[in-house]
Amino acid sequence: MTTDIFFQIVTPAEALARLFEHLPGIPRSQHIGLDAALGRVTAAPINSPEDSPAFARSAMDGYAVRAADTFGASESLPAFLTVDGEVPMGAAAERPLHPATAQLIHTGGMLPPRADAVVMVEYTQPVDETSVEVLRPAAPGQHVIQAGEDLAAGDVLLPAGHQLRAQDLGVLAALGITEIDATVRPVVGVLSSGDEIVPAGSQPAPGQVRDVNATTLAALARQAGAEVRDFGVAPDVRSELERRTREALDTCDLVVISAGSSVSTRDMTAHVIGSVGKPGVLAHGIAVKPGKPTIVALADGKPVFGLPGNPVSAMVVFGLVVEPTIRRLLGAAPGDDPPRRRARLARSLASQTGRIDFVPAALHQRDGEWWATPVLGPSNLIATLVRASGLIRIPLDAGGLPEGAWVDVEPF
Amino acid sequence: MTTDIFFQIVTPAEALARLFEHLPGIPRSQHIGLDAALGRVTAAPINSPEDSPAFARSAMDGYAVRAADTFGASESLPAFLTVDGEVPMGAAAERPLHPATAQLIHTGGMLPPRADAVVMVEYTQPVDETSVEVLRPAAPGQHVIQAGEDLAAGDVLLPAGHQLRAQDLGVLAALGITEIDATVRPVVGVLSSGDEIVPAGSQPAPGQVRDVNATTLAALARQAGAEVRDFGVAPDVRSELERRTREALDTCDLVVISAGSSVSTRDMTAHVIGSVGKPGVLAHGIAVKPGKPTIVALADGKPVFGLPGNPVSAMVVFGLVVEPTIRRLLGAAPGDDPPRRRARLARSLASQTGRIDFVPAALHQRDGEWWATPVLGPSNLIATLVRASGLIRIPLDAGGLPEGAWVDVEPF
Repeated sequence: MTTDIFFQIVTPAEALARLFEHLPGIPRSQHIGLDAALGRVTAAPINSPEDSPAFARSAMDGYAVRAADTFGASESLPAFLTVDGEVPMGAAAERPLHPATAQLIHTGGMLPPRADAVVMVEYTQPVDETSVEVLRPAAPGQHVIQAGEDLAAGDVLLPAGHQLRAQDLGVLAALGITEIDATVRPVVGVLSSGDEIVPAGSQPAPGQVRDVNATTLAALARQAGAEVRDFGVAPDVRSELERRTREALDTCDLVVISAGSSVSTRDMTAHVIGSVGKPGVLAHGIAVKPGKPTIVALADGKPVFGLPGNPVSAMVVFGLVVEPTIRRLLGAAPGDDPPRRRARLARSLASQTGRIDFVPAALHQRDGEWWATPVLGPSNLIATLVRASGLIRIPLDAGGLPEGAWVDVEPF
Repeated sequence: MTTDIFFQIVTPAEALARLFEHLPGIPRSQHIGLDAALGRVTAAPINSPEDSPAFARSAMDGYAVRAADTFGASESLPAFLTVDGEVPMGAAAERPLHPATAQLIHTGGMLPPRADAVVMVEYTQPVDETSVEVLRPAAPGQHVIQAGEDLAAGDVLLPAGHQLRAQDLGVLAALGITEIDATVRPVVGVLSSGDEIVPAGSQPAPGQVRDVNATTLAALARQAGAEVRDFGVAPDVRSELERRTREALDTCDLVVISAGSSVSTRDMTAHVIGSVGKPGVLAHGIAVKPGKPTIVALADGKPVFGLPGNPVSAMVVFGLVVEPTIRRLLGAAPGDDPPRRRARLARSLASQTGRIDFVPAALHQRDGEWWATPVLGPSNLIATLVRASGLIRIPLDAGGLPEGAWVDVEPF
């Protein structure tokens, strides 16, 4: 009943470092339309194909002028200019600006030839239908966005490995880029194991429970940008677990196995993971609670993870090692740590140095402050999953924390 | 050249309050499968259909015992128990536990009849093949998850208005729930206006620019859980803008119009929004920079928003008023404020009391601290959109902020 693979506990970062040194640097890419590009990752830098704006534009509503005609203008001694019509919106401003004249211009309007500045309407005073007084001098270039000032043709717009946000798509559209090269989504195979586990769609017999992890891990993998294939539940028979693992490796880029809850199943999973490809197990055991019995392995170039069967543990470990690996396969620049919510601890928490502790917690506001109430109890209750809205992260060597202490809470 | 709708500036919260009092409380719902449910919103509370676990389970690897047989046990005076086999995983534990015996049990195994506690394997010592010494007393119920302890049949699992996360799907699967009632995604119509704007796919003539906002706002609306229909770019002709707005209202639940950049276009947009349905404009002008010229309206039960044409402004206002309205139409409980990143300001910032300021910023780490560098320059540059990774939020009455000050940065 003891494991015969020696546990040498490493940090999640060390486990990932061992894995990543074997992974290829450059992922495959594919051509996709902008409408399918939200959240996808650029396979190559994208450069601006043109100057933006393509013409000098007004940044304000006002009058296009020659700056020299306004020099010395003041409230007491305004510059007097003849209004020579209006710059059309959405058409070329073709009529040149004559000396001592002004043309009415709107924000975004094209600067007429020989105009070099815009005077805001607030600093002018109409005299009659065809003339205006300017009350402040305009410097050359004032309130003008020069051609190419925003972006010049050839400027790097987005680097490779950038995950596309809503505004990136808007900017690409504005530059006439309607298709891009994105990296191909990795395919993640999800396999559960354990004699006591039956698939979600079936009716458990006495002694059996339905699978939680296949559904949860599939959803997390999709959120991380992967495609998912479900390989069902393997019984605690080594040949069968090995057959399904090989089947998953045949068609997927990464395989996640969530082990049954008994030690013998976990041992068997470790053996299978170690035997389906080279070099095999890279780390067995990470310095995280929950999540210690995690296995990180490589089978002939493909990452294989053995996650704990406990659903909270499986989620924590997914975030620490599987998601960063999916990002790596996607060619995405390493993600920043997620924004965390600062909250106060509603009860004291024990911890242990030498490992990172994650404690599921319910978050609520009281007197304008966020409070985190640990959701405790046996670690394999599924109610924990729905009651918790955050994970309190207790750093490696924090020791315990008193009630009222400020903690970092990650979204959960 | 001045607007003739009187600007009475209100806070975003006040604008939403005026709008929400007109909106129906209960959205439409539809039956969907779990595989399509990630991010969707529950239309009704979901109750647990069964007790979970369905049988008493062991929470540890060890021995199922009768607690009474271990009372008084210690290292010096262990309780001696006969090992009567092993509880099978994934099958009913049918063999009752006889007095002074123990059955080997794995985590998740079903407790045999008449057993009432589990002793962890760490606190036992094998004597021979068929007997074991227990070194600590077990309390009744120790390391046992009782039937229904996790969830009892009828317990509320998830409330109505809950946005489904990965773990929620896992729990539903575990309880045999493979279909749910979700609220119907609202359909958001996106319409741009302005003589100088051409759709993203076309080649602008001199004086014209391609539309940024239709693409950006569509992506944001999808992220918020809506479906999107694109109604193109309307020229600055009132009848045409009105025709397209009515067309959008016919087939959508909410319409977002991003105005062209000139004042006359904005005025026209306000007139059109005020005339396409009752009661019309509810708020014109919000106390936010950028985003002040925002219009919030209701046309015969459907929200209509007039957003500023500037892409950064349009995004800020979308987050403040359109996204909460989409969540409301989705029947989603009001979202918590997003987690923000605390960062230090890389240069001082001026602000004005009486409004909320949002300043686009690039985030980077230096000496273990996050720093936010404001991305300044003319407000209608599109490069700002790609260079910024956050929005510094300066509260209503903060005044200016010095370099090095700690600020809250929202994801952007």
